[in-house]
Amino acid sequence: MADGRNGTPILCVGSVALDSVETPFGRAERVIGGSAVYFTAAASLFHAVQVVGVVGDDYPLAELDFLARRGADLSGIERRPGESFFWAGRYHFDLNSRDTLETKLGVFASFQPKIPPSFRAARFVFLGNIDPVLQHEVLDQVEAPDVVACDTMNYWIDGSRDALVDLLARVRILIINDEEIRQLAGEPNLPKAARWVQSRGPELVVVKKGEHGAMLLANDWLFFVPGFPLESVFDPTGAGDAFAGGFVGYLAQAGSLAPEALRRAMVYGSVMGSYSVEQFSVRRLIDLPVVDIERRMVQFREITAFETHVDAAPGR
Amino acid sequence: MADGRNGTPILCVGSVALDSVETPFGRAERVIGGSAVYFTAAASLFHAVQVVGVVGDDYPLAELDFLARRGADLSGIERRPGESFFWAGRYHFDLNSRDTLETKLGVFASFQPKIPPSFRAARFVFLGNIDPVLQHEVLDQVEAPDVVACDTMNYWIDGSRDALVDLLARVRILIINDEEIRQLAGEPNLPKAARWVQSRGPELVVVKKGEHGAMLLANDWLFFVPGFPLESVFDPTGAGDAFAGGFVGYLAQAGSLAPEALRRAMVYGSVMGSYSVEQFSVRRLIDLPVVDIERRMVQFREITAFETHVDAAPGR
Repeated sequence: MADGRNGTPILCVGSVALDSVETPFGRAERVIGGSAVYFTAAASLFHAVQVVGVVGDDYPLAELDFLARRGADLSGIERRPGESFFWAGRYHFDLNSRDTLETKLGVFASFQPKIPPSFRAARFVFLGNIDPVLQHEVLDQVEAPDVVACDTMNYWIDGSRDALVDLLARVRILIINDEEIRQLAGEPNLPKAARWVQSRGPELVVVKKGEHGAMLLANDWLFFVPGFPLESVFDPTGAGDAFAGGFVGYLAQAGSLAPEALRRAMVYGSVMGSYSVEQFSVRRLIDLPVVDIERRMVQFREITAFETHVDAAPGR
Repeated sequence: MADGRNGTPILCVGSVALDSVETPFGRAERVIGGSAVYFTAAASLFHAVQVVGVVGDDYPLAELDFLARRGADLSGIERRPGESFFWAGRYHFDLNSRDTLETKLGVFASFQPKIPPSFRAARFVFLGNIDPVLQHEVLDQVEAPDVVACDTMNYWIDGSRDALVDLLARVRILIINDEEIRQLAGEPNLPKAARWVQSRGPELVVVKKGEHGAMLLANDWLFFVPGFPLESVFDPTGAGDAFAGGFVGYLAQAGSLAPEALRRAMVYGSVMGSYSVEQFSVRRLIDLPVVDIERRMVQFREITAFETHVDAAPGR
């Protein structure tokens, strides 16, 4: 990919929210969150990002300064009168399930993504988890992206299914969790569900499985990365978006979708997801040293590497 | 391990059962099963096995001939008047959950493992999922095993907890699923739960996670192997015991618990578990060619391998 747009930032469109989170280990009130914030907090460690979203006049924009210092362009975050998107939730004892206590859409209810002219030449576009109708509108405004990566959720699979299935034809990488892809494809077997998705457009399907890791399914190969076995998971909120940020961020930096780049991108995604859950909100990602990212990359290799060929083998 | 007992067969004690299984893809009536049968069907591809169990006079012992042809010694399977242990179950649409329709203990209800004298010198002992009180009795009858590997289940964690916790002091490798270890340790975090187990004896904990793979936790390192992404999972029954058979079978063949051997053992375990589920009962393991085992071993490497160091890296 060397046609002069190599350096173009990733375009990220998603929610910019305030979250109140309760876990068995503590609580955080109205902390910064949302898919665009988690994505950018991770991706900006790898590549420049241009962010499009909307906040109310209650949003503590200064808390996003760390993103701007890394070169993220936040000029596409519209500030409108009213309240910011707010989500409150409580995680259960094992952190694998949660209850939503409150959702207030606020200004997000009437969000109409407007892509600034300087953002439209992006080669990599990340469509965070918003209404597929809006995801279409984003793509209508960009020029000719090479790589469109898209997240979604069960709410849209239920409520906006036709727009979502149409969207797949415009998406190169679908990023989705295991429960959601089963629901979308009506197929419990993940490899078969991925082929259902691929037949509708995306050549690459990334299935996120929470603590169980993530799987990348291409047409004729696949790759699996485990969840990092942390002793202290503090707050799972946003882990999937931090994963997507590490994944897309690394691909944009490498400027390649070659299998070796995709494999490393999957591990960088898992590294960012694993750090994200170590503290509330995006705190752990704010001052994360590059050396910590590389150290965990090596740890991922240590927990998965083995030799195939040795003297001992089956058949006595 | 070269003190002259290297060649001793693995001693396996467990259930020898008949299963009736219903899955979305078909049903099988009164087919051979049980932890000792699945374990031995896998382990005997790697190393000799001596089996101790009990069956009723209704058991089709001829169907175990394939094990004897591989060198498994079945002389420790006692045949008694009455019915064999029988289990009937039905798997749900996604194969991740099942209902038990019927359990008849039959002669298994009064099972008292008697270890034949020629079985007592075993270096590797596998205690299949039976009452921990009986697992103790097995260990009382063997001489000085180097490696005792033990499986259990929620039924014993609830109902025979003291005997089970006592048993841990005599076990070197605990093989258990994720839900069970959380229950046993009263701790949802897997690395912490494994440390709870390790503090009571076993230096190695293998956590089986079904379709999500398996994790080995040693004192200061760990290893993860994914579930093999099969498009056709036919019958999950016995996958955990086939895993244990590949795992312990390879270790006995290698005669080593060195980290590299343990890593390969985890993958061989996953290979055997993945083949086991491709057909009802142990059918897929009966004529499984060695070349298929090695091919899947290489596939496991292909779906997990990545390079850590390349030019592109975080920090633009």
